Amino acid sequence: MPYITVEKHLPGITGLLEYRKETAAPIRDLTQLLLRGPSTMSEGERELIATVVSYRNQCRFCTTAHSAAADRLYGECETSSVAKLDIEATPVSEKMKALLTIASLVQQGGKHVTSDAVSRARDAGATDLEIHDTVLIAALFCLYNRYVDGLATVAPADPAYYEQLGDRLVNHGYQRMPQVYEQLKKEMDTNTH
Amino acid sequence: MPYITVEKHLPGITGLLEYRKETAAPIRDLTQLLLRGPSTMSEGERELIATVVSYRNQCRFCTTAHSAAADRLYGECETSSVAKLDIEATPVSEKMKALLTIASLVQQGGKHVTSDAVSRARDAGATDLEIHDTVLIAALFCLYNRYVDGLATVAPADPAYYEQLGDRLVNHGYQRMPQVYEQLKKEMDTNTH
Repeated sequence: MPYITVEKHLPGITGLLEYRKETAAPIRDLTQLLLRGPSTMSEGERELIATVVSYRNQCRFCTTAHSAAADRLYGECETSSVAKLDIEATPVSEKMKALLTIASLVQQGGKHVTSDAVSRARDAGATDLEIHDTVLIAALFCLYNRYVDGLATVAPADPAYYEQLGDRLVNHGYQRMPQVYEQLKKEMDTNTH
Repeated sequence: MPYITVEKHLPGITGLLEYRKETAAPIRDLTQLLLRGPSTMSEGERELIATVVSYRNQCRFCTTAHSAAADRLYGECETSSVAKLDIEATPVSEKMKALLTIASLVQQGGKHVTSDAVSRARDAGATDLEIHDTVLIAALFCLYNRYVDGLATVAPADPAYYEQLGDRLVNHGYQRMPQVYEQLKKEMDTNTH
């Protein structure tokens, strides 16, 4: 049972974002920018960073949700499954392996990121912005994982829940709900007329 | 030397917020809300949470900056000095000791927060919102500390730098710069006319 009273039908982060909408707004904005904004990293690659960090923080809700999103974006389940257990064995580019390694060091703590790890990413073609965004995405999920588990929110056991959530994250991203509703309304209008 | 190219005269978080203004905006907004927004916790108490978490993450820049802010708000240096080393010996209320303990558990990881730690806070009068905000402030500083150290930003050695920064955080908070400039302009206009 969560440590604070959140709506029962909203598990994990979803109940917390509803509990305090003022703080939810900038958290959503930051996530939307980093995971769905313009970037030389694909949405799948960025969801993979979120997955690896959440897995290493042992946050079941976030790991399952972002694995589901990554799997949809990659069109298969292998990449996220292997990335959680063994970054070097993951079927991604050398640059992406280096960036996932940086993310895994950020998960341990900021001081764990070595100049060797950064040099490896740079040698594989990573830009300043890609290194910056990798560190910030990893740091953001260290926030999310602590927020979700620090308040003992519920992680549904039913895999179907995460399938639906994965769909939502891929189709609507992390926008605030009014924007999502506006977009849905626009789509409905387009379909009707 | 930082791992990415930031402006040399902007150490710690300040260079990162300038480096990518799009991500800086929601980070500033979230921090302003949590540390300066309406709350039953004083600004000093919230800066103390930031200080304790940053200290435990061994982030020198953030620890020194938020200690300076807390010291100004408390009007003395003892509270922040003791809180870093020994929460139970800190001259704050039982409720605040319980909340600082929760923050220190969040720093270790979300799953470290126990129902006993939450019960202690609740028995001492903490509300759901205070427990929520404590967890989220602690999680936010786990983001900040990783962001600042994960990119190897510089922490100035000169204590005078943090004195000035502490003044700025107390007088202007975490608002985006244009708002700070607008406020300064307004103050200047008021003084002139």
